[in-house]
Amino acid sequence: MEIIPDRQQFVSFPFYRLDPVWRRLSDAERSRGKAEFLEVAESYRNRMIMLPYSLQGVRGDADFFFWLVSYQLDDFEQLSARLANTGLGKYLSKPYSYLSMTRRSIYIDATHQHEGQEGNRLHIIPGLNKFVFVYPFIKTREWYGLDKKVRQEAMMEHVAIGHKYQSVKINTTYSYGLDDQEFVLAFESDEPKDFLDLVMELRESKASAYTLKDTPTFTGIRHELAEVLDLLDKPAVTKQPVS
Amino acid sequence: MEIIPDRQQFVSFPFYRLDPVWRRLSDAERSRGKAEFLEVAESYRNRMIMLPYSLQGVRGDADFFFWLVSYQLDDFEQLSARLANTGLGKYLSKPYSYLSMTRRSIYIDATHQHEGQEGNRLHIIPGLNKFVFVYPFIKTREWYGLDKKVRQEAMMEHVAIGHKYQSVKINTTYSYGLDDQEFVLAFESDEPKDFLDLVMELRESKASAYTLKDTPTFTGIRHELAEVLDLLDKPAVTKQPVS
Amino acid sequence: MEIIPDRQQFVSFPFYRLDPVWRRLSDAERSRGKAEFLEVAESYRNRMIMLPYSLQGVRGDADFFFWLVSYQLDDFEQLSARLANTGLGKYLSKPYSYLSMTRRSIYIDATHQHEGQEGNRLHIIPGLNKFVFVYPFIKTREWYGLDKKVRQEAMMEHVAIGHKYQSVKINTTYSYGLDDQEFVLAFESDEPKDFLDLVMELRESKASAYTLKDTPTFTGIRHELAEVLDLLDKPAVTKQPVS
Amino acid sequence: MEIIPDRQQFVSFPFYRLDPVWRRLSDAERSRGKAEFLEVAESYRNRMIMLPYSLQGVRGDADFFFWLVSYQLDDFEQLSARLANTGLGKYLSKPYSYLSMTRRSIYIDATHQHEGQEGNRLHIIPGLNKFVFVYPFIKTREWYGLDKKVRQEAMMEHVAIGHKYQSVKINTTYSYGLDDQEFVLAFESDEPKDFLDLVMELRESKASAYTLKDTPTFTGIRHELAEVLDLLDKPAVTKQPVS
Amino acid sequence: MEIIPDRQQFVSFPFYRLDPVWRRLSDAERSRGKAEFLEVAESYRNRMIMLPYSLQGVRGDADFFFWLVSYQLDDFEQLSARLANTGLGKYLSKPYSYLSMTRRSIYIDATHQHEGQEGNRLHIIPGLNKFVFVYPFIKTREWYGLDKKVRQEAMMEHVAIGHKYQSVKINTTYSYGLDDQEFVLAFESDEPKDFLDLVMELRESKASAYTLKDTPTFTGIRHELAEVLDLLDKPAVTKQPVS
Repeated sequence: MEIIPDRQQFVSFPFYRLDPVWRRLSDAERSRGKAEFLEVAESYRNRMIMLPYSLQGVRGDADFFFWLVSYQLDDFEQLSARLANTGLGKYLSKPYSYLSMTRRSIYIDATHQHEGQEGNRLHIIPGLNKFVFVYPFIKTREWYGLDKKVRQEAMMEHVAIGHKYQSVKINTTYSYGLDDQEFVLAFESDEPKDFLDLVMELRESKASAYTLKDTPTFTGIRHELAEVLDLLDKPAVTKQPVS
Repeated sequence: MEIIPDRQQFVSFPFYRLDPVWRRLSDAERSRGKAEFLEVAESYRNRMIMLPYSLQGVRGDADFFFWLVSYQLDDFEQLSARLANTGLGKYLSKPYSYLSMTRRSIYIDATHQHEGQEGNRLHIIPGLNKFVFVYPFIKTREWYGLDKKVRQEAMMEHVAIGHKYQSVKINTTYSYGLDDQEFVLAFESDEPKDFLDLVMELRESKASAYTLKDTPTFTGIRHELAEVLDLLDKPAVTKQPVS
Repeated sequence: MEIIPDRQQFVSFPFYRLDPVWRRLSDAERSRGKAEFLEVAESYRNRMIMLPYSLQGVRGDADFFFWLVSYQLDDFEQLSARLANTGLGKYLSKPYSYLSMTRRSIYIDATHQHEGQEGNRLHIIPGLNKFVFVYPFIKTREWYGLDKKVRQEAMMEHVAIGHKYQSVKINTTYSYGLDDQEFVLAFESDEPKDFLDLVMELRESKASAYTLKDTPTFTGIRHELAEVLDLLDKPAVTKQPVS
Repeated sequence: MEIIPDRQQFVSFPFYRLDPVWRRLSDAERSRGKAEFLEVAESYRNRMIMLPYSLQGVRGDADFFFWLVSYQLDDFEQLSARLANTGLGKYLSKPYSYLSMTRRSIYIDATHQHEGQEGNRLHIIPGLNKFVFVYPFIKTREWYGLDKKVRQEAMMEHVAIGHKYQSVKINTTYSYGLDDQEFVLAFESDEPKDFLDLVMELRESKASAYTLKDTPTFTGIRHELAEVLDLLDKPAVTKQPVS
Repeated sequence: MEIIPDRQQFVSFPFYRLDPVWRRLSDAERSRGKAEFLEVAESYRNRMIMLPYSLQGVRGDADFFFWLVSYQLDDFEQLSARLANTGLGKYLSKPYSYLSMTRRSIYIDATHQHEGQEGNRLHIIPGLNKFVFVYPFIKTREWYGLDKKVRQEAMMEHVAIGHKYQSVKINTTYSYGLDDQEFVLAFESDEPKDFLDLVMELRESKASAYTLKDTPTFTGIRHELAEVLDLLDKPAVTKQPVS
């Protein structure tokens, strides 16, 4: 994805849940289904940033999700429609899907960096950490009634606490009017315990008191897409080689 | 739909969700099902305003919806009953469906404008923008206990903020007693980012503090109905021509 | 149903939702299923008041419902058990079902009026209007802590507003301890817009501030039962006569 | 069940919902399934108090439930596991299930009374009335912060109101820490209208203001288990004798 | 699992619910499915602490769950993926799954104790009691705004009450930012009535007033995994030996 200066990006977090019926299909049918899903996804790689994460062993209501970034909302529509008609997609539902926008163009794809972009501090390359912590976020209406200076001080305290946890990177996107939440937040880190400590410390900040909703909270485990799909039908017992 | 002066209109937003089982049917059966759905819908075009929107890539709980306007509530009943028995309709459920009324006759169909109606500022022609942002809306009971003048000032502030965003058109319909919400709001725009900014700015208005519920929020993508239906079984992988 | 003076009546509002799988059955099987449902229902007509309403085109979570009145709770048990085992009933679920009682014997069946009952203002003949607006209702506990005189004044204001809308008839039944809600309210009118205006005006009444829950709100469309059932499998496209 | 003085009893209210698919099975298969269910249930009769109630015609989310009392939690585990594997049980789900305990040994089985137990006012023989009204109950945390004397006075007022309704018997069991609610309350009466009046009057008591949750409320209709099961596939239309 | 000093542990409570369809499979297929599930689970025993609990007869929304402890979040991912593809796993869903961490390394496996660890009071050996009481826990934001000393005193009162119930052991794990709740609490005891009394007494503590959510509450019954699985298809009626 080519970066376009000063142009806002759309961000989508579609969460997929597998119908257990798929697991009862033949090996051949499952393999074909996964291959189709992978082929469709790969064909959109040049149009958007696409980061897959597994939720297996983490949550019970979804199996995996994508972090998608594109300049075109239509790209998500087309990708979603095509994925749904792959052999695997016909057995997937989406228990959650969050739509948001950046307020300026901030994301850049790791595979599309150009020389001149190095050192560009305004751009974020997501997906380089092992874990992402994603949640939709809504502030209470009382927050918006506070004096602007009070809010600014509260946010500065918030940011200062965040800076103490160097292993955690924050990504903020905006959903006002586009979806049910006000923000979708995505924190990246290789150390879940650091994020745990950060969130625990933030509870005592002034801004935290004005939180209306910050769940569900998803701890995504970063994988290549092929790995995420292979986790869906990971053999129960390793087959022994026939001698 | 002929406009009838001073007569209130019924408005319906039925949201459809496709059972993934439909995607596993044969090409022929799916095509027939879509054709039937399209034929029924088209046969009601002269009785109501009917605008289809896709939600693919936007939400996980619904695939598409209609914005319907008619002078007869029975029209929605008949249309809904017939659509449900098309080949496609037999695999659709309706996770949401909102019923409301205009408080005076405001909508006019783009395909039924007459000479004399041009310049009639009281009439709205919906569906001309690429996106619609729809949500059910309930105010807190505290709002209704406020002095009327206070409420009027709050609404004037609200309207004034809206006027700053020229690319966004607001449509307000009323549901008191007819459905779970008090209003169904539909904002139209070609620029999601403008609506995002508008809603964000409105959070700081006085009226905003009296919001009880303004979700779910749907970002609908405008298409011809045939396109919406084709998105439902969009081929995963483009078939190569046989040489 | 013979009216029994001074004896309270049970009232039930069972809401039915059709499994779309039924729509895929053969014409013969569907016809037989509807005929059985109709036969069972008719066989209870002499024991209770039974008014069917369609919700098609109105809501997405239910297709039709009954307004039932009987002196025997067992009648609802027997009717419900039998309907569930008709060819149609085997594909129905009940997303909602509200149980309540009158506080004195108020309902009278239009088909069972006797000479002497004419002019009896205490008795209500329900089902004569095209629409019914039904919802479960719970007041806040604060309401019950108000001084009795204050509550009485609030109710008088409430009633006075209601009297301004002559086309709307109110029916109040009581569910305390029998079901999740405190009341089930059923308003009848031929004019949805009048009921909309009434509810809108009531929002500003003192009593309205003590509402805990007044949803879901159902706008039922009155039909003969055979019509309600025929709406369930209304042909998508009208069959052309074979020449 | 032999009464063991000073030993607390476990109480369970499992609610069953029938998959409509069961209704489409053959007469023989349904009969066999019901017979198995009945046989398993009966085999536990000597180990626990077991009272079946029907919810048909009352609620839409469950078809019947048991009121179970035992000294062993394991008894509920074993009974539940065996019932689930009967021909009927394979088509049942449990939308609700409440676990609680008595705070002293209060229940006694009508079929196991001994001479010496007559006149023992501490023991309750449940199941002798036609109706039971069951609901889980949680008080607000504010309640627990009140002065003990204030709470005691409130409870005395509560009890005094109850005593005015002689046809209603109250049973209180405790769930703190064992299940989602704090109490499970079961009121027995032959007169639903009396319980309705009682609950309505209780709304004005001081204690009522500290109710956080008292729903869902189930009105169970007492039957022998065989009758409850026969209601599940009650013939839609009475078969005519073949002449 | 070897204990690693000063290293935090991941904790997972996956809750499983059986699709009743599984109960209709042949004896051979069910046995094979259970054997596969057991084999996969056992193969992870050396990598984590794995304690199975049954919920049969206790709750209606889940049949059994695990208490898992590991140093690697990936272990839960791998175990979960493999279990899902066993013959039994293909008919299981996970209505709940809670992820948390210890704040220091506290758990030790009963089967992996070494000489030198005896007497190490910092380590907990879970699973030695017949029952566990598990629930996710969220405090109100007001709590975090209290003066630290006030909170400390409240927690000391809380702990003091706990100490009065010697048969109950408390285990606290932390979920801030990793999952929807702030804590997952697991209390172990052989006496449900003691835990009931403890929770009842805690309601009057100062800290209790700052509870936002402490449900669902699960009373798990400790079994060997083979026993938990056998409860899933426990024969309805004991087969008589063929003579």
